[in-house]
Amino acid sequence: MFVLGIDPGLSRCGYGVVEAAANRQRAVAAGVIRTPTDADVPHRLTELALELRSLISEFEPSVVAIERVLFQHNARTAISVGQAIAVAMVEAVAAGCEVHEYSPNEVKQAVAGHGAASKEEMETMVRMLLGIEVPLRPVDAADAVALALCHISRQTAGALR
Amino acid sequence: MFVLGIDPGLSRCGYGVVEAAANRQRAVAAGVIRTPTDADVPHRLTELALELRSLISEFEPSVVAIERVLFQHNARTAISVGQAIAVAMVEAVAAGCEVHEYSPNEVKQAVAGHGAASKEEMETMVRMLLGIEVPLRPVDAADAVALALCHISRQTAGALR
Repeated sequence: MFVLGIDPGLSRCGYGVVEAAANRQRAVAAGVIRTPTDADVPHRLTELALELRSLISEFEPSVVAIERVLFQHNARTAISVGQAIAVAMVEAVAAGCEVHEYSPNEVKQAVAGHGAASKEEMETMVRMLLGIEVPLRPVDAADAVALALCHISRQTAGALR
Repeated sequence: MFVLGIDPGLSRCGYGVVEAAANRQRAVAAGVIRTPTDADVPHRLTELALELRSLISEFEPSVVAIERVLFQHNARTAISVGQAIAVAMVEAVAAGCEVHEYSPNEVKQAVAGHGAASKEEMETMVRMLLGIEVPLRPVDAADAVALALCHISRQTAGALR
């Protein structure tokens, strides 16, 4: 099973594809989709949609795990992140994927064991869990991989219950 | 030229198609897209996207005029409206339409002549401008038609300058 994690954003949208097999998980792809800041929002959202569509068609994930938008952000940021989320959701559902949302706190809990984990700690944990020896840059990519790992660990925990 | 006005929302998304010819404008279609409140957000957004895609493909508007989201809404509402806007923008751009956003105040100014117009006043003005004798219901549909009229009046004003 492939899981696509998405750290949503209009300027920078992190993505990470993780394969979950019986006893192991493997990083398949990670990176960041950027949209040109000099373009207008409708065209940037469309470009994001097309890039995500192409990723989903390449890796055929069965699940897309997206970071939940936080209401405590300022309104402008929350709306922009919410719009990137909307675009990712539509691409995921249209391709037949399940969609799950996780809060940053849930992702930290699942990957680092506590909700106060720093960005550096998360990146280290992600690399350890996946046996990656080089730094994962940019951090949006590591955050997206962490989202995929969060979904996998919750599914595994569910199966063991 | 056909203009599709959109009063964005996830539970109720108003739409109105207006044809602008040399000296007249004509209402072509108006209504409301509803998505099931018992479905999850990813599926509701996808349904909205598909309904809008079908409207755009039926009427082939050259312009889609969308109401701008207001930051003074509460965050949850603003995010939800922003998500409906994102979906509409992507469908519009993907179909080759121009996208324009107008604030409620701009729409009221353009259609009723002042920014404090009530919903009833707006509905009456929309019907008068388009020669419609029956009440326009629901109001989301009248609001969407007003958005299309706002775009047309601004284009005409621009051409006369």
